[in-house]
Amino acid sequence: DIQAGKVAAVQCQACHGKDGIGLTPQTPNLAGQKELYLSTQLVAYRSGSRKNSIMSPLAKPLSDEDIANLAAYFASLPATGSR
Amino acid sequence: DIQAGKVAAVQCQACHGKDGIGLTPQTPNLAGQKELYLSTQLVAYRSGSRKNSIMSPLAKPLSDEDIANLAAYFASLPATGSR
Repeated sequence: DIQAGKVAAVQCQACHGKDGIGLTPQTPNLAGQKELYLSTQLVAYRSGSRKNSIMSPLAKPLSDEDIANLAAYFASLPATGSR
Repeated sequence: DIQAGKVAAVQCQACHGKDGIGLTPQTPNLAGQKELYLSTQLVAYRSGSRKNSIMSPLAKPLSDEDIANLAAYFASLPATGSR
């Protein structure tokens, strides 16, 4: 559900931007990324199979539904961002 | 060096596409991604701090220069790909 993902994505904007384009050179662009890749990475951060000091704690509380919504939302954004 | 990266990227095209757009739902788009993020991930795959059955062996033999060239090349591609 893209709309639910948009709501959940508010917490992501500080680093990943309002349009899904990373705000630092180290922060990946998520806009237009593959939905399954995005959800797989969030699951990996949540399980700990992929580690990042910022993403790991943020992913910990996410439900499967949150992850699906976030992945759908960011995948739906134009890859070139809004700028 | 983007041109050297283009040459090195031939081995990546089977999954990441000729234009840096992943060819399977699980394979991330690399086109237009952040250069530093791309190089950081290749270093992580090479060191083993990030693991993937396909990427880990491919990253193992890469030199720092290969990684810098590949990151520069994929970051330089249009995020929307050529399709």
